Amino acid sequence: MNEKAIEEILGGVIRNVLSELKGQSPVSAAGLNTTDSIPVELSARHVHLSEADAVELFGHALTPVRELSQPGQFLAKERVRLIGPKGVMDNVAVLGPSRDSSQVEVSKTDARILGVDAPVRQSGDVAGTPGIILASQTGIVGLEEGVIVASRHIHMSPADASRFGVADSDKVSVHLDSDRPVTLEEVLVRVGDSFNLAMHIDPDEGNSSGWNSQVTGRIVGRN
Amino acid sequence: MNEKAIEEILGGVIRNVLSELKGQSPVSAAGLNTTDSIPVELSARHVHLSEADAVELFGHALTPVRELSQPGQFLAKERVRLIGPKGVMDNVAVLGPSRDSSQVEVSKTDARILGVDAPVRQSGDVAGTPGIILASQTGIVGLEEGVIVASRHIHMSPADASRFGVADSDKVSVHLDSDRPVTLEEVLVRVGDSFNLAMHIDPDEGNSSGWNSQVTGRIVGRN
Repeated sequence: MNEKAIEEILGGVIRNVLSELKGQSPVSAAGLNTTDSIPVELSARHVHLSEADAVELFGHALTPVRELSQPGQFLAKERVRLIGPKGVMDNVAVLGPSRDSSQVEVSKTDARILGVDAPVRQSGDVAGTPGIILASQTGIVGLEEGVIVASRHIHMSPADASRFGVADSDKVSVHLDSDRPVTLEEVLVRVGDSFNLAMHIDPDEGNSSGWNSQVTGRIVGRN
Repeated sequence: MNEKAIEEILGGVIRNVLSELKGQSPVSAAGLNTTDSIPVELSARHVHLSEADAVELFGHALTPVRELSQPGQFLAKERVRLIGPKGVMDNVAVLGPSRDSSQVEVSKTDARILGVDAPVRQSGDVAGTPGIILASQTGIVGLEEGVIVASRHIHMSPADASRFGVADSDKVSVHLDSDRPVTLEEVLVRVGDSFNLAMHIDPDEGNSSGWNSQVTGRIVGRN
């Protein structure tokens, strides 16, 4: 441990003592707001479809039935079947609006059942990922690529980013106050004008942490 | 933050600076060895059987085929089918030797598929847990209770406990150096003369952390 490291640690301790004395929320040595909580949402397996693939499967564009937490995003009335080399999953949710290319988001557990070696990726980053077959009652589409395990992330507005002491593309550690408490590391911060504050985890992360819809997260470190 | 808390934090910082200057491994404020690594093993779904249930299912006692990491424990040749109200799982491993009562260890994901509301419990703590039906080619057994999601834990010898600065029944936070890095909190320490050093996690914890057999853990805090 060098002098700089010692200075940083002691500096953090002293900063927090001073914050406490002034009655402010504690700020970590890294300048993070580690007190305010973030809603945690579980993204169950779902599909995003291109317009062409939606028409191929259903004969028409997607039909919105429910708004999601991020503005403009919706759950569609339509459902699809995923057909992998080892397994099949029925009644899989489709989210809209349509994107430039179709994408399938599953958990590692799902991927194993389907027989698809899906990597952990951020949404949209599908180059070189495995494909899969999508089917409806009336159509079938073969995706060349697009199956991913969605990497955990936090949506937030610029105002929230300023409040938490983070910036777009930061990676942070987030503590979940759940039944099987964990700190998830390398959580990507995504800042956008239209984003509502929400952390998204996948079903494996939800099951392993004992997640329920009341669970919240706190940023506890920067990676 | 009171004076005592400030003293504790500064005390920890000073202790570590002194350890570093003396060339020793860092010891946390809580007196933990946070440097040495612990092998992490994934416990896939499995069943422990009482002698009576083994005989009911197979007509004889269990047949060992492979030693497990904890001395005396083995994987049996025999396999069972789990039959829950919503789903069935075939070819489930049976571990020996036989215990006083049968117990089924599944993940939350499995429990959902089977339709059984299994709580997170330590092995052996099955009072009030749901039952399930076990079947073989030749027999069937209905368990009144015994289905649990095994709570993560670390087996270690008294010498390891001394080395890590922990005691039996302590709960600690363990950082996994995996592809999706996490810190699992409230991990139970189980100290026994016959225990080999190994942390056991369940398949949901394995999938959500990107576990593989090379992954190790470090104790990073006491809960």
